[in-house]
Order: sequence, then C-alpha cells, then structure tokens
Amino acid sequence: MIPKREYIKYKNWALEYFNKSHLVIREDEIDKIEVADFGLSDLENFCIMTLTFFNTERISAKVIVVPPRRICPEHWHPPVGNDPGKEEIIRLRWGTLYLYAEGEPNLSPKAILPDYRKKYFTVWHEIVMKPGDQYYFKPGIKHWFQAGDEGAVIDDYSTCSRDALDQFTDPDIVRIPVIKEE
Amino acid sequence: MIPKREYIKYKNWALEYFNKSHLVIREDEIDKIEVADFGLSDLENFCIMTLTFFNTERISAKVIVVPPRRICPEHWHPPVGNDPGKEEIIRLRWGTLYLYAEGEPNLSPKAILPDYRKKYFTVWHEIVMKPGDQYYFKPGIKHWFQAGDEGAVIDDYSTCSRDALDQFTDPDIVRIPVIKEE
Repeated sequence: MIPKREYIKYKNWALEYFNKSHLVIREDEIDKIEVADFGLSDLENFCIMTLTFFNTERISAKVIVVPPRRICPEHWHPPVGNDPGKEEIIRLRWGTLYLYAEGEPNLSPKAILPDYRKKYFTVWHEIVMKPGDQYYFKPGIKHWFQAGDEGAVIDDYSTCSRDALDQFTDPDIVRIPVIKEE
Repeated sequence: MIPKREYIKYKNWALEYFNKSHLVIREDEIDKIEVADFGLSDLENFCIMTLTFFNTERISAKVIVVPPRRICPEHWHPPVGNDPGKEEIIRLRWGTLYLYAEGEPNLSPKAILPDYRKKYFTVWHEIVMKPGDQYYFKPGIKHWFQAGDEGAVIDDYSTCSRDALDQFTDPDIVRIPVIKEE
C-alpha cells in the first residue's frame, strides 16, 4: 500500500531520473509512471518506478528507475499458456546496478539487504552493471537487483510483459501496487 | 557497394549522433555499427546507420541513425515460416523524422525524394515524429522514412529481426551492405 503523497513524491523522483539520464518522455506518459512497492510498504528498501512504452502480445519495452539502494526483489517469469515465459534483456542507461541471477554465487556481494527479508534472496551470482552494459535473462531464471548509491535507470526489453503473473521468492509480495488515497 | 573510407566516415558520424542523443555504447559495440546504403551507392540520399543491441528468436532492439535528409526506402516485413512477420515499434530519441506508412496520403508531404527513385515510394500517410513520439508497425505494413534537416536517432524495438528478408518496393535494393576494400 503506497500513500498517495509518497506515490507523487516517487513519481516526481522518476521524472528527475528521466531528465538526468536524458530520456525524453511525452506529456501523456507522465501519468503512466508506475511506482511499485511490491506490497511491502517499505519504499526506503523496496521500490522501482517504471514507465511502459508499449506492451503487445509479442514485445514490450519499458524504462525502470531504481532509486539509490532500492531493491527489486527476487522473481522469475513463469510460462503462461503457450508462452515459455518472458524473455528479458536489460541495458543500463544510467548509474550503477548490482544485478543477481542464477550462477556461481559471489560471497562478498555489493548489495546490502535489510535483515528482515534477507531469507527471500536465494541467487547471488553478481553482475555489476555500468551504462551500456546488457544482461539477458532466459525465461524462468531467478533474478533481482539493487541500485548503487546514486540510483540506476534501466532500459528493459522483453517479450509480452505480464507483471501480475511474475513469481516472487518472498511470499508476502503483491506485484501490482495499490495507491492509498488520503 | 560502400567504399571503405565512406563506411568509416559514416560510422564515425553515427558515433557523433550517439553522443548528441546521449546514448551510451560500449567499446566492443563500435565495430558492430552497420552503415547501410541499400545497394544504391547513393549515401547522400539513401543511408541509415544501425547498432543492434541484441537479436533473439523472439525480440530485438537497435538504434538507428538517419543522417540529415537521408531516406530509408519503402519496405515491409513479410511472414517467415511460423512468424507472421516482424512487429516493430519505433520511438524517436532525437531530431525529427518524417515517417510514411499505409493510410490516408498527405498531398503536401515534408519528405523530399530524388526524382530518379520517386516511383518506388507508394505509401504517403505522413507522421511527423519528435523526440518521445512512437509509432507501431503491424507486420506486413509498408513504410519508409526520411530524417529532417538535423538528422534523427531512432530507438527501434521489434520481434526477431531478419533484415535480409525484408521486402522493398524498389527492385534494385540489396539490403545487406557490401563494403568495398580500397
């Protein structure tokens, strides 16, 4: 649950990051910016802001702002009907991103997780991403990420995006944000 | 056929446009920049420079530089095997683009075509694109474009890209560029 005033604050913060990372958006896109707290009501730790450019049955593109040290929790994209699962490529537009996926774990990771949810992070193969770097996620691969101290802006490319069907390791997560009017 | 020195000149020009439009690319991507003359050997009129970020069986993304007043000739993306044809969305990153697709023709179009190939342009529904603007091409839809006086940089998103199988109205076109060593 995101209080309306927090939603507005984070939405405006996203606009600042779009500006810093030289992303031009249209006037009509401002209201399409989504602020996600993953149902954890802990925006200081878990938060991404996304603007979806388009989403068809076959392809999708969005830009994701990750504020400083915020985390996008561990998740994967399961098969849906005839779809073997979302195929996703991220390319870093701005900032630094600590990305974790399945593979050889890093025993001294750069990510810093709040203790109370640490147990819900199980993949620790670390990729430190800088602008221009890309990473490819096969369907079904578990992954999560945290922005560096300055935040990060990600160009996200994928097959059809069905956020509501993403699966999360943390059982308390609700992917689609609920804004609480005040 | 593109003489090697012209290829290098246009490749470097692409780098300038990437810079102007704040696209960060990696060192290893510089050599992947393609300069296409569509086999017409007339770079003053027909030319695009592309950098493909990735191309899987399901999705692809690239950035396209269109130098001042250069044209990408009329083409469409036909069905290939089980694929109903490439679905494509362009979003303008920088500059001005005069885009033409199937639909109500514009009788006073902004595009300026060289007379000797004018007959190979048959769709004249005009969309004047500014940064942030997007256009969606259904598979099979004929389209072409010309940059404005300052040039244009396009973010191009699509299903699997098979440039060699694109179909062009102009029978003289050869899509895959040939560089002539000197």
